[in-house]
Amino acid sequence: MEPFELNILGCGSAKPTTRHQPTAQILNVRGKYFMLDCGEGAQTRMQLMGLSMANIGHIFISHNHGDHVFGLPGLIGTMDLLGRTAELHIHGPQQVGELLQFLMSTYYSEIQYEVLFHPVDVRKHDLIYEDRSITVHSIPLEHRIPSVGYLFREKPRLPHIKRELIDAYQIPVSQINNIKAGASWTTEDGTVIPHERLTYPAAPSRSYAYCSDTVYLPELKEIVKGVNLLYHEATYLHERALRAEQTRHSTALQAATLARDAEVGQLCIGHFSASIKSEADLLKEAQSIFPNTILANEGLVVKI
Amino acid sequence: MEPFELNILGCGSAKPTTRHQPTAQILNVRGKYFMLDCGEGAQTRMQLMGLSMANIGHIFISHNHGDHVFGLPGLIGTMDLLGRTAELHIHGPQQVGELLQFLMSTYYSEIQYEVLFHPVDVRKHDLIYEDRSITVHSIPLEHRIPSVGYLFREKPRLPHIKRELIDAYQIPVSQINNIKAGASWTTEDGTVIPHERLTYPAAPSRSYAYCSDTVYLPELKEIVKGVNLLYHEATYLHERALRAEQTRHSTALQAATLARDAEVGQLCIGHFSASIKSEADLLKEAQSIFPNTILANEGLVVKI
Repeated sequence: MEPFELNILGCGSAKPTTRHQPTAQILNVRGKYFMLDCGEGAQTRMQLMGLSMANIGHIFISHNHGDHVFGLPGLIGTMDLLGRTAELHIHGPQQVGELLQFLMSTYYSEIQYEVLFHPVDVRKHDLIYEDRSITVHSIPLEHRIPSVGYLFREKPRLPHIKRELIDAYQIPVSQINNIKAGASWTTEDGTVIPHERLTYPAAPSRSYAYCSDTVYLPELKEIVKGVNLLYHEATYLHERALRAEQTRHSTALQAATLARDAEVGQLCIGHFSASIKSEADLLKEAQSIFPNTILANEGLVVKI
Repeated sequence: MEPFELNILGCGSAKPTTRHQPTAQILNVRGKYFMLDCGEGAQTRMQLMGLSMANIGHIFISHNHGDHVFGLPGLIGTMDLLGRTAELHIHGPQQVGELLQFLMSTYYSEIQYEVLFHPVDVRKHDLIYEDRSITVHSIPLEHRIPSVGYLFREKPRLPHIKRELIDAYQIPVSQINNIKAGASWTTEDGTVIPHERLTYPAAPSRSYAYCSDTVYLPELKEIVKGVNLLYHEATYLHERALRAEQTRHSTALQAATLARDAEVGQLCIGHFSASIKSEADLLKEAQSIFPNTILANEGLVVKI
């Protein structure tokens, strides 16, 4: 099956540790890379994971805190040095546009490709991007500054044709796309071969939701309902729920509660505070509510 | 002897590779850290090398290209998260001030310490900083944008006192500083004990010159004359001297020629182009002119 997989480049929080890098991810959708946040060092992590920067068309930024954007200055320059000519699209809260404006006028007035900024309304759950394969919707989050998550959904795919029956019924090649799209076939003697007989069902559409940074928002369960994979920040253990509330972050227990209530397939938690001594405790806490939870880690690839 | 040592955090050039990080160094002068350039990821490299960011008082930036400054945004924030209250001084060409101004107003209006920018006139060889231990002079360089190097010299140190003679002649403690500063001692019976007899000579003052990025400038030999260690960029092999000239960089042969003509103690070359297949070739080329040459590398510590 064509890839739909999440690559974790960094899953730490703002205060750096030797264990984790600041937040950055690559969602690989059938070879097209969608970047989610871009903390310092993201380009280095991509190189170490063998992910080509040329495959990135769109970058989605959650919020304008340094640990989510300070990889952009270097990445934009590196793409130019690597000979990029394709447009680069960057989506995010309006504040991110100011960073880009500064970078483009100060460092990159002469680069060979265009960087286009698309402001995202952080208060709305909107369709903000689509192409032939996917849709991307915004997810309104709540943090100390305007923050937004992103929901990626594959578009329904067409069923696969049964080659041997096409040959057997001598169906012309020109009809194949019609049959994939739902048509039946009538043979010369008038027999109707139903669409379902001529095709294998399409693989189910896959989905991924990214929620970081945010305070716990129970109402998100409607938006992320049933996604295959939910990445949710879990900066603290629940014993520090007050600290999470104050800093507008979430606990592992809260992330798991959302995952359970939204009936997602799998939960991946990240954005670990530098104060966390044992991530196993975070995992245990989350799994007590939602067993199918995993810990993010640099270099982790989650196949969806 | 108290440390005077160079820590290489990164020695690559702008186009990143998995072999090298962008330029950043820490000169450790008796426990005080002076940072030289601050490419992306410098803070991570410091953590990996066990170098505390709290020990940095001054940062010296050569020029405002991304591969020499894009570690500053994250570093400034991290210092705040680590509880810094001491002023941070950043020296560099005027353009660096614009980056700092943007960062401070956009991301760091509420941090708990002050960041002070000191513009450096890149056309002059000037004293730009001094404290009890060292002087720092600017070194005018020539690159595509205004660029400046830095020369660190320990101040002459006082001689060490011979404790056993202080006791033998019953010299009061109050006189020790005078003797260190050059005084002799006259005993009760009028015998003069010369300063030289009462002291061991001071260790010689140590020096370090940092020259990156720059085209080859033969006249620098007057400024860096006799330094213990010269770091000079060697972006290319000399077979690409034309490319070096065009991009305002230097070759390994040119770096070594300067080291030889300036009669320095040791040469460390760095800022390797991503196109360099074998750094051993760079080293061989430099050593053909100046044998006491070493290659920079991430994690390298050069004791001066």
